[in-house]
Amino acid sequence: MSKLWGGRFAKNTDVMVEEFTSSIAFDSRMYREDIAGSIAHARMLAKCGIIESGEAEAIIGGLQEILADIEAGDFSFEIGLEDIHMNIEKRLTERIGPVGGKLHTARSRNDQVALDTHLYVRKELAEIARLLIELEQAFVETAQKNAGVIMPGYTHLQRAQPILFSHHLLAYFFMLARDFSRLQGVYERTDLLPLGAGALAGTTFPIDRHYVAEQLNFSQLYHNSLDAVSDRDYILEFLSFASILMMHLSRISEEIILWCSSEFAFIELDDAHCTGSSIMPQKKNPDVAELVRGKTGRVFGHLMAMLTVAKGLPLAYNKDLQEDKEGLFDTIDTVKFSLTVYASMIRAMRVNAERMLSVVRNDFSNATDMADYLVKKGLPFRQAHEVVGKSVRYCIEQDKWLMDLSLAEFKQFSPLFEDDILEAIQVETCVANRNSFGGTSYSQVGQALETARQTMGKQQAVLDTYTKSKL
Amino acid sequence: MSKLWGGRFAKNTDVMVEEFTSSIAFDSRMYREDIAGSIAHARMLAKCGIIESGEAEAIIGGLQEILADIEAGDFSFEIGLEDIHMNIEKRLTERIGPVGGKLHTARSRNDQVALDTHLYVRKELAEIARLLIELEQAFVETAQKNAGVIMPGYTHLQRAQPILFSHHLLAYFFMLARDFSRLQGVYERTDLLPLGAGALAGTTFPIDRHYVAEQLNFSQLYHNSLDAVSDRDYILEFLSFASILMMHLSRISEEIILWCSSEFAFIELDDAHCTGSSIMPQKKNPDVAELVRGKTGRVFGHLMAMLTVAKGLPLAYNKDLQEDKEGLFDTIDTVKFSLTVYASMIRAMRVNAERMLSVVRNDFSNATDMADYLVKKGLPFRQAHEVVGKSVRYCIEQDKWLMDLSLAEFKQFSPLFEDDILEAIQVETCVANRNSFGGTSYSQVGQALETARQTMGKQQAVLDTYTKSKL
Amino acid sequence: MSKLWGGRFAKNTDVMVEEFTSSIAFDSRMYREDIAGSIAHARMLAKCGIIESGEAEAIIGGLQEILADIEAGDFSFEIGLEDIHMNIEKRLTERIGPVGGKLHTARSRNDQVALDTHLYVRKELAEIARLLIELEQAFVETAQKNAGVIMPGYTHLQRAQPILFSHHLLAYFFMLARDFSRLQGVYERTDLLPLGAGALAGTTFPIDRHYVAEQLNFSQLYHNSLDAVSDRDYILEFLSFASILMMHLSRISEEIILWCSSEFAFIELDDAHCTGSSIMPQKKNPDVAELVRGKTGRVFGHLMAMLTVAKGLPLAYNKDLQEDKEGLFDTIDTVKFSLTVYASMIRAMRVNAERMLSVVRNDFSNATDMADYLVKKGLPFRQAHEVVGKSVRYCIEQDKWLMDLSLAEFKQFSPLFEDDILEAIQVETCVANRNSFGGTSYSQVGQALETARQTMGKQQAVLDTYTKSKL
Amino acid sequence: MSKLWGGRFAKNTDVMVEEFTSSIAFDSRMYREDIAGSIAHARMLAKCGIIESGEAEAIIGGLQEILADIEAGDFSFEIGLEDIHMNIEKRLTERIGPVGGKLHTARSRNDQVALDTHLYVRKELAEIARLLIELEQAFVETAQKNAGVIMPGYTHLQRAQPILFSHHLLAYFFMLARDFSRLQGVYERTDLLPLGAGALAGTTFPIDRHYVAEQLNFSQLYHNSLDAVSDRDYILEFLSFASILMMHLSRISEEIILWCSSEFAFIELDDAHCTGSSIMPQKKNPDVAELVRGKTGRVFGHLMAMLTVAKGLPLAYNKDLQEDKEGLFDTIDTVKFSLTVYASMIRAMRVNAERMLSVVRNDFSNATDMADYLVKKGLPFRQAHEVVGKSVRYCIEQDKWLMDLSLAEFKQFSPLFEDDILEAIQVETCVANRNSFGGTSYSQVGQALETARQTMGKQQAVLDTYTKSKL
Repeated sequence: MSKLWGGRFAKNTDVMVEEFTSSIAFDSRMYREDIAGSIAHARMLAKCGIIESGEAEAIIGGLQEILADIEAGDFSFEIGLEDIHMNIEKRLTERIGPVGGKLHTARSRNDQVALDTHLYVRKELAEIARLLIELEQAFVETAQKNAGVIMPGYTHLQRAQPILFSHHLLAYFFMLARDFSRLQGVYERTDLLPLGAGALAGTTFPIDRHYVAEQLNFSQLYHNSLDAVSDRDYILEFLSFASILMMHLSRISEEIILWCSSEFAFIELDDAHCTGSSIMPQKKNPDVAELVRGKTGRVFGHLMAMLTVAKGLPLAYNKDLQEDKEGLFDTIDTVKFSLTVYASMIRAMRVNAERMLSVVRNDFSNATDMADYLVKKGLPFRQAHEVVGKSVRYCIEQDKWLMDLSLAEFKQFSPLFEDDILEAIQVETCVANRNSFGGTSYSQVGQALETARQTMGKQQAVLDTYTKSKL
Repeated sequence: MSKLWGGRFAKNTDVMVEEFTSSIAFDSRMYREDIAGSIAHARMLAKCGIIESGEAEAIIGGLQEILADIEAGDFSFEIGLEDIHMNIEKRLTERIGPVGGKLHTARSRNDQVALDTHLYVRKELAEIARLLIELEQAFVETAQKNAGVIMPGYTHLQRAQPILFSHHLLAYFFMLARDFSRLQGVYERTDLLPLGAGALAGTTFPIDRHYVAEQLNFSQLYHNSLDAVSDRDYILEFLSFASILMMHLSRISEEIILWCSSEFAFIELDDAHCTGSSIMPQKKNPDVAELVRGKTGRVFGHLMAMLTVAKGLPLAYNKDLQEDKEGLFDTIDTVKFSLTVYASMIRAMRVNAERMLSVVRNDFSNATDMADYLVKKGLPFRQAHEVVGKSVRYCIEQDKWLMDLSLAEFKQFSPLFEDDILEAIQVETCVANRNSFGGTSYSQVGQALETARQTMGKQQAVLDTYTKSKL
Repeated sequence: MSKLWGGRFAKNTDVMVEEFTSSIAFDSRMYREDIAGSIAHARMLAKCGIIESGEAEAIIGGLQEILADIEAGDFSFEIGLEDIHMNIEKRLTERIGPVGGKLHTARSRNDQVALDTHLYVRKELAEIARLLIELEQAFVETAQKNAGVIMPGYTHLQRAQPILFSHHLLAYFFMLARDFSRLQGVYERTDLLPLGAGALAGTTFPIDRHYVAEQLNFSQLYHNSLDAVSDRDYILEFLSFASILMMHLSRISEEIILWCSSEFAFIELDDAHCTGSSIMPQKKNPDVAELVRGKTGRVFGHLMAMLTVAKGLPLAYNKDLQEDKEGLFDTIDTVKFSLTVYASMIRAMRVNAERMLSVVRNDFSNATDMADYLVKKGLPFRQAHEVVGKSVRYCIEQDKWLMDLSLAEFKQFSPLFEDDILEAIQVETCVANRNSFGGTSYSQVGQALETARQTMGKQQAVLDTYTKSKL
Repeated sequence: MSKLWGGRFAKNTDVMVEEFTSSIAFDSRMYREDIAGSIAHARMLAKCGIIESGEAEAIIGGLQEILADIEAGDFSFEIGLEDIHMNIEKRLTERIGPVGGKLHTARSRNDQVALDTHLYVRKELAEIARLLIELEQAFVETAQKNAGVIMPGYTHLQRAQPILFSHHLLAYFFMLARDFSRLQGVYERTDLLPLGAGALAGTTFPIDRHYVAEQLNFSQLYHNSLDAVSDRDYILEFLSFASILMMHLSRISEEIILWCSSEFAFIELDDAHCTGSSIMPQKKNPDVAELVRGKTGRVFGHLMAMLTVAKGLPLAYNKDLQEDKEGLFDTIDTVKFSLTVYASMIRAMRVNAERMLSVVRNDFSNATDMADYLVKKGLPFRQAHEVVGKSVRYCIEQDKWLMDLSLAEFKQFSPLFEDDILEAIQVETCVANRNSFGGTSYSQVGQALETARQTMGKQQAVLDTYTKSKL
């Protein structure tokens, strides 16, 4: 197939090379952005007197028809035309004649593909922001619904101290809130216009980049044309954001998987979120949680891939940068899917409150409270720790829990113990007493829920500004 | 859609979850392996008396028809049926009735998917081995064709010592030869049969795994059923192999790109392997080399993804492991494409021998030879180095090369110089004199070419054994 | 050695395990932060009536003496005491008696180490911000100093269009400015207080976390205690920031290395920033640029390491998280060193302006301007591109440059050419005419320099707020 | 400090650059290899008549004294001398006079550092091979000691089928055996001599590389000098090997951590392998397992770092390659420590056999056996699966296990059930009946133990050949 850049070449491109270097298989996904960018560009060319306004109208009309064709499924992309830009430009010229060839005045594919990708990422960031709020909402509602449920808190996967289940869920809320905050940074550094950078050095035509920015709702412009065509920071930053987000989801996934096990049995997932086994009829597997945990690897891999691609590239554009898209698109899909399915899964899960309470009544996770009791009676903490450590060892040897000890036994370890000790190390007391800011007490968790709601309100306001920028 | 494992479930799978957890979109690629494995399994079940031989015949006939349908494009895969295994089993039962349900006796999807993947990787390793030899051949032929061409050798991208261009090309040959050797290790650890491991623990049926191995040309069997279903080492090892191989290709890519620049101008690629610019009419870009360099990142990313997936998984199978395939398949495609296009590009490139020779005549890369000259006259090397270092500084100040110095000037730096010095530091002498084993001299490179040819002969013999194992 | 937590244990820790699990070898680096945090904690304990104010004074006095000892080199850290916290607490008790044991009231090592690391990272971020501005300054000054220098601009490492050398340098300025902006996000999400989270659930003591935050200049507090002890987002985000920054440095490194080669010869580095060869007396190698390019890998690796560590960990603290520090510290050192050495190297490099200009006069990088000329005469761009492509092919066959063509020859390709064509495709015209916003024209680059200066002014103001937070 | 390569330079190296580019801080670890290599080189120089034999003797004597000094702690390494090679050569010349300067005849630091690293990795591979066998031995002995212990086997962390605990442990044995096999490949590709490659092109001196290889027990030589100085494949391959090995250890770590939890309570680690909490007196944390799981990330990171470093480097040596050592050394240390501590921890852990058996009696993991029972009575497997799935659902609703059903209840689901069904689904029967090759039956596990012992015997024989190559 004859190339739009073929004048200098004596020989056609090898077919295999054509297939290898073509990006149409994946960049066709950005057809809306490509056309919106071209329309804004054509309008600007006319406004600046670079083309006639009648020419601009013909171009814009042709582009709108092509958009309609694509959305109707009436457009076949051709590998030989390399990419979404050339596919559309070729069709445009077929449709409106040689004037179509004026569209590419004062721009290059280098700034055009950068524009498309900025627009695309910006749009998807808004969608991801929305899904983040939805998953936050699911955590908040589930925390609210299970307000008084007590569970063992863990460190090192060993029972540590009793906590509220809602406190545990809110930990994930606050991780996601940080993800939202990071997303805002990515958005800010994505929301800037590369078009007008030309191939690398700007253009000799009297263009108006600010006018294009205005039409496409960009708040900023790149200040340097070399940077504009070779910058992939916003993609790397998006992949970093996504990696940290997926890491958070991998942690809750791990916990969901543990909690669904027969050994923990803290929750049961809805049948709709599980699958069975081809051979073992009793199985109900938490596949969704496992897959999200697994897909974390995929996103980390895409980050590493793109860092490797960018490393050591001289300015300005190099073809290596075409590798920026597939990992990006796959990450967007993965993140959106994971957030969506999690929001639904968290909401539908059944919480086994009795089981959680019963296990925490049968462990040593009230030991810190016993030490704190002694401290409040005047013993330095380090000595109190020692006293309780020995009590625990005694209990293990006697096959007892701390609540099973008699006052006499308590007093063997320290004379400071009095009969209010049993009250002090009851599970409910342990929870209620951790009333420091951010702690697990009923009152603190109530406040945290309120903070979470306010946070989501502010996020919604941010999201509203994003959706206003939508084309 | 009703699931083959649905007996225990009260509710259907959520449609979104179905889509999320389904693997048919990518594992359908292994339909040939899946069917070959099922045929071998059915035959074994009959041989061991677990099913009737008539039943086996019905099953095998049905499978062969399905294979024909798929190859003819008459088979539509369904997402609701999750994977290639269930898609085929469901169709089999539709076609031959309930006896189709006997095929899954004494196996699980866990060992079945492991089998398919082993067979698939083994087949592709043979193909990659073949392509490796082809690229080696391209390097060897190009080295042979340019036997006497001299170029500057570099360290730190600074001219270091004159070398033969063929010596440089053969460095890549020997890298690829190590890749071949690594591939043999991957092959060996891929070529073992997991089927018969059942879900995780073996099976209660009196199966004969050795008979299955024999039919499918496996040289070994997994010795432990838990290991068989959860092992992904061979995939990780393949991805490591591929990462190192792509790293090698990224190095030659970097050099091709440098050599094509106006500044180096050592080679010119064929038009068929280059593309132009949408805006700059003079451009002829080495896109293929850039893309291969870029795709290195993609393969590194897949390795990192799979390592992350496998990290910390408890035994035996977990759904996370379903993430093993897409990165694997993409790596296989990338490696095959890169090797193929490189073999063709290397063969077609035009070597600018005059340019290479002319630049090496105009630099200081004969300085080591000047120092060696002094050493041979009795000066300790460290002092000879000092003498030559000062001569170079003198030349830079005088805007001369070493070859431009008069004997009187030489003698200023050391009385050991005599009039054979100019002969000793001529470019051709520098090359010819590096005659240590593995060095750049004409004679050593001639021997290395012979070694290369013998190596390829041995590799071909290995490849022949691989292709015999093909199903 | 007897452990501060040993009460419950019947047996001592294995010596090898002690060495393996101890972190003192690397976390001792945070002694200042640990002591500052402990002083603030002790002061708060007294203010809230949890300990006596005399006890607090004794503790604070002891800690200040220990600080002095460490800074004087009079403190020996012991592996058996595991970490910086225990080393200091043990010494404190030795020095001031059992009251030292009260310091650990209402806190845990989990929130303590989180505090130390937040303080440490916050401090180092301020230092890195300062070094970023310094390197930006070096780019700006060098751009200013070489204001009119013209060089070839590249895409695909092929000469593309003539640009100003200062425009090229400013591309790096704008990358670094984005790094600064990203750093602000990391700073914001690092600048929050974890202390008071206790082991995981808060504490039963009536502490005042806001008072501690105020003393340590934190602008925010963690809202959830589980999150506070298990969050490593700020470390991951720092490593992502650092990876992108190092990627930028790897790109300029690649260019420095190219420009120093005999083939490019665009710049010469100062002897102070190069090293020689043990064997080749003529060598002057750009080691610093190579090392920085290499060290990019190290930072990417630390990011990947920490992502892997965090993946799939259940709440709250797990010992895996101890792995957060070595990679973090090494990254901090690497980034600081790289920024420092680059600022000095960029400033000291010698720019070979004549060489740059002479090469750009001898290539086809004015071809786009020739096409733009035709467009301005009314030809659609796509046809103009074709005309120039053919002219370039003609020139290559005739061994000429575009500037060498006669008007008659020009007219062979298009009748639109007139005698102003030679003026239009002169190198200086090509540069001057790319006057779109962000382009390479003299005027645009002048404005960009001004923007750069203003940006640095704003950054300095941000930095001033950071250094005010220093302890 | 004046450099051994300083003749050409007008100015000294910047002190900061000196520190940045120096490698002595980490490469001093290879002093033994450096000296052994130099002795072999000197001996060869004399044998080939390049230096006098008296000179060689002086050099060798001097080197041996330096070795003794270093081992006695009487040698101070200097940063200004850059690396281990220059440190030793400088001292040698100080000690024996200018003749020391003859040692560097016919070699370069490029091939010298390659030699040192090959020797070092080869030595450490032998040690790691030894530790691998030791850990295998620990698994085998522990499996043997707990021969009849039954536990639940898991997939998706859901109870799947009953298995022998020893079968589970042997899965790890077979993973480690594959690691050993991979190590052999790394060893083979490490065991080749780079010395004699010179800076990049060989040498003009009549050296005998085969003689050096013989002295240093190398089985092969690099065939290409460019490849010899720029190859880091063996390091990458080692890091890949180590990553897969650590991944295996991360899996057993995850399981150890789960098994130590109150919820599982399958094992108890020895006090010597656990640590406590600074605040919670009851805690006994499986720190070693957590750290090994965490350190997996570190090793993955080093692999990714080195892949990034090597990507896109032109031939031959570039300073980036100096980044090969720190990650390598840290990986060697991490792997050796992890293997050692695991061998000791696995041996010392207490297995809670009663607990394991009691939980497996109270679940549905015998459901597959119930389906197999029906298949053996003639029902197609797919229908049997459906029958048992419904039975399980019935049991869950009735709060029963399958063993609790009456024959009448069984018959409700299928008339094929007879009174031998209870026997068929007893836990011990389930285990004993999975007697396929590699399955969990008592007899298969007995055979697997025997296979394991034979494998270790063969590995020991390989190790013996390695230790014979030790210098």
